Amino acid sequence: MKSDAILTDLYELTMAAGYFEHGIQPRATFELFIRSLPPQRGFALACGLESALDFLENLRFTEAEIGFLRRLPAFQNISAAFFESLGQLRFTGDVMAVPEGTVVFAREPLLEITGPIAEAQIVETYLLSVVNFETLVATKAARVVRAAGGKDVFEFGTRRAQGPEAGVRAARAAYVGGCAATSNVLAGSLYGVPLAGTAAHSWTQAFSSERESFEALLDSFPNTGILLLDTYDPLNAAAIVGRLKRKVPGVRLDSGDLASESRSVRQILDRAGHAETRIVASGDLNEYRVRDLVAAGAPIDAFGVGTELATSKDAPALSVVYKLVEMEGNGKVEFKAKLSPHKAYPPGRKQVFRICGNGDYERDVIGLARESYPGAIPLLQPAMRHGQRLGRRPTLQEIQGRAAESLSHLPPEYQSLELAAHYPVEESRMLRELTDEVRESVLRKEP
Amino acid sequence: MKSDAILTDLYELTMAAGYFEHGIQPRATFELFIRSLPPQRGFALACGLESALDFLENLRFTEAEIGFLRRLPAFQNISAAFFESLGQLRFTGDVMAVPEGTVVFAREPLLEITGPIAEAQIVETYLLSVVNFETLVATKAARVVRAAGGKDVFEFGTRRAQGPEAGVRAARAAYVGGCAATSNVLAGSLYGVPLAGTAAHSWTQAFSSERESFEALLDSFPNTGILLLDTYDPLNAAAIVGRLKRKVPGVRLDSGDLASESRSVRQILDRAGHAETRIVASGDLNEYRVRDLVAAGAPIDAFGVGTELATSKDAPALSVVYKLVEMEGNGKVEFKAKLSPHKAYPPGRKQVFRICGNGDYERDVIGLARESYPGAIPLLQPAMRHGQRLGRRPTLQEIQGRAAESLSHLPPEYQSLELAAHYPVEESRMLRELTDEVRESVLRKEP
Repeated sequence: MKSDAILTDLYELTMAAGYFEHGIQPRATFELFIRSLPPQRGFALACGLESALDFLENLRFTEAEIGFLRRLPAFQNISAAFFESLGQLRFTGDVMAVPEGTVVFAREPLLEITGPIAEAQIVETYLLSVVNFETLVATKAARVVRAAGGKDVFEFGTRRAQGPEAGVRAARAAYVGGCAATSNVLAGSLYGVPLAGTAAHSWTQAFSSERESFEALLDSFPNTGILLLDTYDPLNAAAIVGRLKRKVPGVRLDSGDLASESRSVRQILDRAGHAETRIVASGDLNEYRVRDLVAAGAPIDAFGVGTELATSKDAPALSVVYKLVEMEGNGKVEFKAKLSPHKAYPPGRKQVFRICGNGDYERDVIGLARESYPGAIPLLQPAMRHGQRLGRRPTLQEIQGRAAESLSHLPPEYQSLELAAHYPVEESRMLRELTDEVRESVLRKEP
Repeated sequence: MKSDAILTDLYELTMAAGYFEHGIQPRATFELFIRSLPPQRGFALACGLESALDFLENLRFTEAEIGFLRRLPAFQNISAAFFESLGQLRFTGDVMAVPEGTVVFAREPLLEITGPIAEAQIVETYLLSVVNFETLVATKAARVVRAAGGKDVFEFGTRRAQGPEAGVRAARAAYVGGCAATSNVLAGSLYGVPLAGTAAHSWTQAFSSERESFEALLDSFPNTGILLLDTYDPLNAAAIVGRLKRKVPGVRLDSGDLASESRSVRQILDRAGHAETRIVASGDLNEYRVRDLVAAGAPIDAFGVGTELATSKDAPALSVVYKLVEMEGNGKVEFKAKLSPHKAYPPGRKQVFRICGNGDYERDVIGLARESYPGAIPLLQPAMRHGQRLGRRPTLQEIQGRAAESLSHLPPEYQSLELAAHYPVEESRMLRELTDEVRESVLRKEP
């Protein structure tokens, strides 16, 4: 998968061709937002902006890609001039965006793209996909980390991710959401996510006894080795660990009743003088099971969470959409809105105004960009101008810090695992009035 | 994401280092299987083998990757010789595999890797991830396609996939499962999946009237243009289409009550002389909604299925695992088994024997590779020897054909959307006896 330019839906390219053929080249503004949050989610943690900006900065079509498109039956009536223009196409537009690690809600624009309509259209599919998935996992991670109540959470999900590349994206997003580390080495290398790992059952099996396998692991990894206890019988394995006359950094339980087994293992280790040995638990964990283990007082020091985190298993997609809200041509601005009954979205370039009281988030108002709410935090910030990134790229640690900060201002009732209350988000009067105007003008034209 | 070698879990590399440091370099056999099928699935359609073989053929660590690993704290006690060996590492092993597009069940090995233990270990994470996700989507697609009862199904999910790369993988796997086309252009270019597309709401909005937008689309795409009806009001839009004095290849409905709206639209189009115009329906479809629309006799010619298909939303991961079953060193074979209570898996190299009656699949027997069941189909076939692919690469069309053929032999009770019966899969007596022997020998060593 070498190219990202044609990693898009066919209709983005047919529309771009159609605009070109009809000389329709206005500047257009599209907004990307989550239509509604999954039933189990009280908030989302914005993520995916850096992937989106990287994509926009590098957008270009190779000769081979253009050759492939030319030969598609759909394009048989399209002029050579269009394909020549594709070879020159770069993203030259502007981007407003909610920074990664910000708490957001449904219908709030997370990304706003303004540029020549063909450029802004072609990028739709890729932008939706990265914001969808990375926001999904960052949000899920925030839930799991909160449930862990201060214990470390390690992201272990690549093997069950929706493809290995999704594993890399999940590892980064999970760190944004508050995870301490990932097992995904490429994510460590690309993004600086701290790495964590233990050993598999095959390690134990490769030796002629468990004791031998444990000694061997600690010989090679004296400061980081974590011994897996459940290849045969966990308590028997814990007794073998207890008899080791050396430092044992940690042990891992991967099956069975984690609450009772962690207690038995802790007791065996403590009696054997291994009070410093950490217990890591894994095996089909999610935020609910982690919460229950913490509530039960299970002596677990870190949770390894895989499948449920890397796929956001209970809600594996967000209803992200990308809608045209404004067009500017011949010096005049036209407001655009989608008005179909269940999928309507207001017109015009917007801003999200976050209103706080005593330092806590109280409510958000989605208004027009030109409105102002003194004292409110405007969430959308300039991220790119004329195709160039603005400001320096934040470190992943900074983004994780921003997420922790943002979550600390969100009252707990919106963060509970069983959703208790909906955070108030309203539309400004000016926005509602503009929506009505656009609706009336469409009805006049399409009676 | 340029490299795939370090797209793995840290523990694969620490174990490889540990094996190296202890001079443990036997040939090992690992088997990859699905521990149990999701509750809603009566079968799985194997997919991901081509991705797995591509990965194995190209496995190598770059200098930069090795440099990154060397600097990790976990590796501080590992010798320089190990890192030098990593630079030379290629996959030199053998692969047995169930061909893509074969119906398979839980606990049946889909892939069997035999090679030097470090090589076979390092590849675990990537192989699990590709087989997991591609099998998941091929299976979901087979369900949707069956529900569509002969109508075309288009895969439209990239925008909601778990990252854009997952969208590409999903597009290919959905085609294997029987979809007619995808919207993902890169999947068309890389794998030859047929492409389909329509237009977005923004196309309609970019023009000053719906009529004008429809005419413009058909000017550029006279043979393939599909007009989107629900930007404002679908029936009004259908009436506008009815008045067009030209060929209209298709229209699309993307919201509302698709059964009743498709009927009204069909009537409007037929009365206007557009009987040839196809109706495409989309909008949060899955196999159940498609089945209900077909059962209601909705005049829909093709279904566009996105999010639910590309993420296998109701079951977004398979419980794929990769287990050591055999080790061979100093001329003798040792059988290995995982024996932990809920996650046990039998030892030894296996074969899946599919027993048929009157051309239909009747039951499968998981036995040892050296067993034979005359007349049964052995599912695992040689796919790679000494790191080299065997035979030619099948075309995607051939794989899709194999899937259709395999599904045609699976009795309908195992394919119903509401799972009615479990296909019988048993373990052979020899396999059960070997499991008991290995269990007893472990118990003798670890009392």
